[in-house]
Amino acid sequence: MESLRVALGERSYPIHIGAGLLDAADLYRPHLAGGSAAIVTSRSIAPLYIPRVRKALETAGAKVAEIVMEDGEQAKSWEQVDEICGALLRARFGRDALLVALGGGVIGDLAGFSAAVYQRGIDFLQIPTTLLAQVDSSVGGKTAINHALGKNMVGAFHQPLAVIADIATLDTLPDRELSAGLAEVVKYGLALDAPFVAWLEKNVEKLRGRERGALEYAVRRCCELKARVVEADEREAGERALLNLGHTFGHAIEGGVGYGQWLHGEAVSAGMVLAGELSRRLGLISAADVARMRKLLERAGLPIAGPKLRPEDMMDLMAVDKKAAQGKVRFVLLTSIGSATLRAGIDASLVREAIVSAMQ
Amino acid sequence: MESLRVALGERSYPIHIGAGLLDAADLYRPHLAGGSAAIVTSRSIAPLYIPRVRKALETAGAKVAEIVMEDGEQAKSWEQVDEICGALLRARFGRDALLVALGGGVIGDLAGFSAAVYQRGIDFLQIPTTLLAQVDSSVGGKTAINHALGKNMVGAFHQPLAVIADIATLDTLPDRELSAGLAEVVKYGLALDAPFVAWLEKNVEKLRGRERGALEYAVRRCCELKARVVEADEREAGERALLNLGHTFGHAIEGGVGYGQWLHGEAVSAGMVLAGELSRRLGLISAADVARMRKLLERAGLPIAGPKLRPEDMMDLMAVDKKAAQGKVRFVLLTSIGSATLRAGIDASLVREAIVSAMQ
Repeated sequence: MESLRVALGERSYPIHIGAGLLDAADLYRPHLAGGSAAIVTSRSIAPLYIPRVRKALETAGAKVAEIVMEDGEQAKSWEQVDEICGALLRARFGRDALLVALGGGVIGDLAGFSAAVYQRGIDFLQIPTTLLAQVDSSVGGKTAINHALGKNMVGAFHQPLAVIADIATLDTLPDRELSAGLAEVVKYGLALDAPFVAWLEKNVEKLRGRERGALEYAVRRCCELKARVVEADEREAGERALLNLGHTFGHAIEGGVGYGQWLHGEAVSAGMVLAGELSRRLGLISAADVARMRKLLERAGLPIAGPKLRPEDMMDLMAVDKKAAQGKVRFVLLTSIGSATLRAGIDASLVREAIVSAMQ
Repeated sequence: MESLRVALGERSYPIHIGAGLLDAADLYRPHLAGGSAAIVTSRSIAPLYIPRVRKALETAGAKVAEIVMEDGEQAKSWEQVDEICGALLRARFGRDALLVALGGGVIGDLAGFSAAVYQRGIDFLQIPTTLLAQVDSSVGGKTAINHALGKNMVGAFHQPLAVIADIATLDTLPDRELSAGLAEVVKYGLALDAPFVAWLEKNVEKLRGRERGALEYAVRRCCELKARVVEADEREAGERALLNLGHTFGHAIEGGVGYGQWLHGEAVSAGMVLAGELSRRLGLISAADVARMRKLLERAGLPIAGPKLRPEDMMDLMAVDKKAAQGKVRFVLLTSIGSATLRAGIDASLVREAIVSAMQ
């Protein structure tokens, strides 16, 4: 097991990475002062892992409740938050209860937001069981649900007490979801770390083959990069927005085709290509750089072009992006492989061109 | 105008108290960096004050949107939060927009919670227009909506950028609501400040007669007391819970008769008498102390007995109270007039007796 730390003053917390950590009662024990814990998970994850997590929590001395939600992005709705809060109230869980988010990015967002608002905020643990959640969404305290008018438009910054990333849970992850997680892995390299891009170009097949050493290295490197960024800019006033490379386009893709049709990582992959195409049109990177991005994403098993949407609809969907300031959309662009930047006031015709250039 | 300060490090903010402050563009200007502001208010307040606040915001340079919600405790629901977020999204208001909560406690809670969760949190101002909101709910960053299973069970701690308490808005407040506000005023004295109780015993008729000097003094004293408590315990880990004197019983009364039947302050008044009766039964205060409480509350125009509810139902409703720890209800009790304490593990038969002793 390796442990990193996200240093955020009184909100600091550890990230534990290793195989078999689900069963490690010692990792849960420090967080059970209130004596009760509710595991929130999805229908597909529940039979695989609830018994093990329950046993570890009980060994650590907790009274345990289970709250099982539907799978899929549609679960990130207020109705589900209301259901989780209702289950906690019926179980008479108070402000000192611990919520345990066990699952992928959707469960982490949904359970994390429920923890943020239940009785004005209770503690929670992130136990990510997908690659995407382990490298990205479980770290940094972003939680959210979707609004009919936009993805992740309602949420909270609410840091977990710990992140427990059990690499062994990736063994059962469907190939498509593993690839979706790799989109975020590639994102860290493209936005922040050129040597990591080179490492990925050497090791992407090992990652797809689920070689544990490679997976553990990739998860650790991504968490290190994310921790550094979150420490510098917890509430995304600046630098943290760079981690949204591909996400402005990606969210528009997800919204445009209907949430749940494209996996988040798939939309981010196509979104990164669009961001690359836009960066090239602005003279920030070369055509060879964009080709290099496409090749790596393709080897990761990811789409490198967006769905057939009207460019005008895409642009409309992007106008409500959270990175907008004073009504203007801001784009995360690349100045080189391994270095991102935030720019506003981009000529709409260039955005349109970039969209058209990377459509299926 | 008098200005106090709530000292909470980077979340510090001023409370401005005076007559005519609604129109003071200079009070809004420092908070309009993003250039846009949305006024959230209720149908009854809108015609009275929206034009003035809009004019002051526009004078200060803001693009202004208006969001008008239904009146009443029922408005503290998720549907209303969703509606506010939808209106902000349609107006293309981003993370740098300012939300202005203009109204009583319900609007402050609803708009404050919407500000807490819209795009993971935007800035907001509290402009309380009822006595209850000016002395209590607008200060300290508590925001919430109701869950079907309990009042204020979903919410956030989200501090405003400023509180602007315009005493002149109390001129049009219905008598019943003025009295409801006095319940919280009396609460500050009973829980924290014996000399203030003596002042209230001299001046309660002046307050009911809306003498501006008396009102301004009472609002300032309550805000001073609240600021001190919030500074010491922002997230209610300890001392802040003392400000919930009467609220455990009060919330059960509100829930038991149906939200909106009793005003919050009315339920708190009867709840304080119940807390007094329980304190007397535990030998903490004398029968004379309880009689003194009853007399002051009665002179303030408030109920001093709860509604006809089954004691068992009351106790069931109290069991989900947010002050519960490890599943046990904790009561705010009095050790003297002017001094409150938090106690758990109270004998249920004594609680039952106290309830029966103060029923209509």
